[in-house]
Amino acid sequence: MSTTSSTPPAGGLTHFDAQGQAHMVDVAAKAETHRVAVAEGHIDMLPATLQAIVAGTAKKGDVLGIARIAAIQGAKRTADLIPLCHPLPITRVAVDFEVDAAASRVRCRAQVETLGRTGVEMEALTAVQVGLLTIYDMCKAVDRGMTMGGVRVLEKHGGKSGSYVAE
Amino acid sequence: MSTTSSTPPAGGLTHFDAQGQAHMVDVAAKAETHRVAVAEGHIDMLPATLQAIVAGTAKKGDVLGIARIAAIQGAKRTADLIPLCHPLPITRVAVDFEVDAAASRVRCRAQVETLGRTGVEMEALTAVQVGLLTIYDMCKAVDRGMTMGGVRVLEKHGGKSGSYVAE
Amino acid sequence: MSTTSSTPPAGGLTHFDAQGQAHMVDVAAKAETHRVAVAEGHIDMLPATLQAIVAGTAKKGDVLGIARIAAIQGAKRTADLIPLCHPLPITRVAVDFEVDAAASRVRCRAQVETLGRTGVEMEALTAVQVGLLTIYDMCKAVDRGMTMGGVRVLEKHGGKSGSYVAE
Amino acid sequence: MSTTSSTPPAGGLTHFDAQGQAHMVDVAAKAETHRVAVAEGHIDMLPATLQAIVAGTAKKGDVLGIARIAAIQGAKRTADLIPLCHPLPITRVAVDFEVDAAASRVRCRAQVETLGRTGVEMEALTAVQVGLLTIYDMCKAVDRGMTMGGVRVLEKHGGKSGSYVAE
Amino acid sequence: MSTTSSTPPAGGLTHFDAQGQAHMVDVAAKAETHRVAVAEGHIDMLPATLQAIVAGTAKKGDVLGIARIAAIQGAKRTADLIPLCHPLPITRVAVDFEVDAAASRVRCRAQVETLGRTGVEMEALTAVQVGLLTIYDMCKAVDRGMTMGGVRVLEKHGGKSGSYVAE
Amino acid sequence: MSTTSSTPPAGGLTHFDAQGQAHMVDVAAKAETHRVAVAEGHIDMLPATLQAIVAGTAKKGDVLGIARIAAIQGAKRTADLIPLCHPLPITRVAVDFEVDAAASRVRCRAQVETLGRTGVEMEALTAVQVGLLTIYDMCKAVDRGMTMGGVRVLEKHGGKSGSYVAE
Repeated sequence: MSTTSSTPPAGGLTHFDAQGQAHMVDVAAKAETHRVAVAEGHIDMLPATLQAIVAGTAKKGDVLGIARIAAIQGAKRTADLIPLCHPLPITRVAVDFEVDAAASRVRCRAQVETLGRTGVEMEALTAVQVGLLTIYDMCKAVDRGMTMGGVRVLEKHGGKSGSYVAE
Repeated sequence: MSTTSSTPPAGGLTHFDAQGQAHMVDVAAKAETHRVAVAEGHIDMLPATLQAIVAGTAKKGDVLGIARIAAIQGAKRTADLIPLCHPLPITRVAVDFEVDAAASRVRCRAQVETLGRTGVEMEALTAVQVGLLTIYDMCKAVDRGMTMGGVRVLEKHGGKSGSYVAE
Repeated sequence: MSTTSSTPPAGGLTHFDAQGQAHMVDVAAKAETHRVAVAEGHIDMLPATLQAIVAGTAKKGDVLGIARIAAIQGAKRTADLIPLCHPLPITRVAVDFEVDAAASRVRCRAQVETLGRTGVEMEALTAVQVGLLTIYDMCKAVDRGMTMGGVRVLEKHGGKSGSYVAE
Repeated sequence: MSTTSSTPPAGGLTHFDAQGQAHMVDVAAKAETHRVAVAEGHIDMLPATLQAIVAGTAKKGDVLGIARIAAIQGAKRTADLIPLCHPLPITRVAVDFEVDAAASRVRCRAQVETLGRTGVEMEALTAVQVGLLTIYDMCKAVDRGMTMGGVRVLEKHGGKSGSYVAE
Repeated sequence: MSTTSSTPPAGGLTHFDAQGQAHMVDVAAKAETHRVAVAEGHIDMLPATLQAIVAGTAKKGDVLGIARIAAIQGAKRTADLIPLCHPLPITRVAVDFEVDAAASRVRCRAQVETLGRTGVEMEALTAVQVGLLTIYDMCKAVDRGMTMGGVRVLEKHGGKSGSYVAE
Repeated sequence: MSTTSSTPPAGGLTHFDAQGQAHMVDVAAKAETHRVAVAEGHIDMLPATLQAIVAGTAKKGDVLGIARIAAIQGAKRTADLIPLCHPLPITRVAVDFEVDAAASRVRCRAQVETLGRTGVEMEALTAVQVGLLTIYDMCKAVDRGMTMGGVRVLEKHGGKSGSYVAE
């Protein structure tokens, strides 16, 4: 029985072993440190759709409030959705939406934190994607052409690989 | 007890009742018809990352094969992730990836079908998002700056609202 | 191989076969009809807690909006939670909360509908329970003594056993 | 990027930030201590229903044994069901039922423990609720009027806020 | 957009398209018929372990009752676990255990039924596997060498491919 | 309130308390150590089926690659499937398949690791079972008689009970 996975992976991709087989990589030797990841994304829509969202948030029909809840819950489902993700004890999730009327766009930004042995980028990205999908779902009856984009990691802190901040 | 939900919703958004409260809309009166939705999206990456993916697909370290499985499974989790989505008996899911070397990009296209009372756009979009997230996960060790975008519905057929084809 | 389950169950409880073993009862012979169930329940709390909820709903910190989403999602998880429940294609979920200041209580009422072969009482009851639990969760930092009660089926329509209306 | 959430929340409810937006609160700074929570609840039913349960438990048709399993599994699903709950490494779950023939009632009591950064009241309450729902499900064919109530936290130990014991 | 999947699959395996890519096959054209599948399997153990199980079933510590519940719930999770399985509206699940003292073995037999467009062999097999795994879990403290085997489909009825009965 | 569970369990089976009631055993006092479990199993099939799998793995229609992903994801679902299993922070999962042409059999071997308070045998066994089930699913159209067997724990290390190696 081998308990190591130190052989060089295929193409620099650590999720594969030396034979090119997928595995959930060994993180037992990594330190349990405070890790933070911030991801962002946006959804573009017709101006009238944005107006309906803004009206609802202020008064009734709270699209963004519901999308925020879905995003937070999505972060908790990450290891269920992404095959090689490790289950992680998330210690914090915060999700913000920003309405950009000029661009007819809603921006989403999710911050996820853990005290764990591996990073939470996937949790932050999943939160953003589920938040945007929920906005799409709630507005699709009036606007089928909405498009989601710009989904990426903004910042990442903690762990041996150190900090990453997107340009 | 009221079994109707015919009052005009907030801002034209059907997921809210006349008081602006969210609900899962009544689809019992809709016909059970064959419904198809196609969604697409892409992930941009460094040329070297794309090369690692292409090399793996041909030989070992099959990133796209794993992302396809995750996307198909993601389609089945849609009603779990999106708060107001109806559970649906999916009858088909097909997910294709296309490598665009010139754009240093992988495109994802998902087609979902059902015989049901409501459309499967959300299932197709969720498949695409989970497929792209899985590619991000498997390549993030070599390329943290990958960005996902262009996620939208391409086509939709079946149901009373008829066909929709994106421009 | 026996495909029938017509032997008299233990103590009139249909979830057990003639040997007293639990099973998921056969519903294949039941008609696929429109079925509706309404359930209710409440949570009692300190007047100050109720005030915080009311203030938040009007302005910010929307406890009841979040509990409504959790209740709707809870209805979809019923067959996961209750061992012998059949999975059902829910066609509608509506959840209402009513603030009863005199009783220092929030009432929850959930209506669930399906076109299926078995009733949706469990889905309606689960929606109420998850809605009340979510209120408890969001207010527990200021009021640990909140108590949930009065959780029952109010009405049930459709299916061979006909309508039931609580006294 | 802000990693703090120290601003005063809306109405004393810690699940909202200063803007009234829901978030999963930061527990990273909390100590990982032994935490215990005990919750209780009951379900009232017709005497004949109680008799059927008692008969089954002794001989065949073990309603309470099945409800116990559902309750234990329910405790593990808490973070899936309650939107702002943290996932927690549960270290123990025990569920007891007590038949109160005089009151024609079954009482449920769940004790959940963890070594974690936040309490397990929600897990104990969820266990009780799912246990009671399972009893309802198994007996509903003979008694639709069963009512669940008295669901509350009895005791809570561990963590900075110290012990709580219900009056 | 192609809605057909009629090209000959790789190696006769229908879960792959003409390019060898996995997909969830199209079942929309299949008739919604009554379908039944029966699967079996067993777990071999030390005589003393079997004795503990038998003693518990009769009196207390009901290993088989708990394994039965787990098996029934497992059947409902099949489409979550098996990537290319279709979600199906299960109409019946029955799970039996038989103690074979001579062979120091517990046999498990699961029958699953649906009114659907595809068979339920996977649901029946998953029920058996989860039932056996649960027995292993509950007895592993006294017997680590238990071995599961003989897991196969016994019978299958309904659908275009007709009946299958194992030799 | 009792926080101990030290009374002798029914028949030596630790998953039951002194009254024979099932519980999730208390692991809070156990040390958080590095724990490893290896499980194995196999699926027997017709030679032609094995040939189709082998052809697909090399070129297209990658049955074993998909089964590996399903097995890894299955390991993460263990506590959802097995009623009395503790949720565990898995730190590594590796799954290997070996084609045994002489026996017309595919062998599966799963290794799971954690830094936790209880072992990961159930996670390794679940990975094997889900991997084998996925192979069955993908090949059942050409071979209904496939049989799964030999599923057992090969090795177990870590924890107070020390190492176990199957004979």
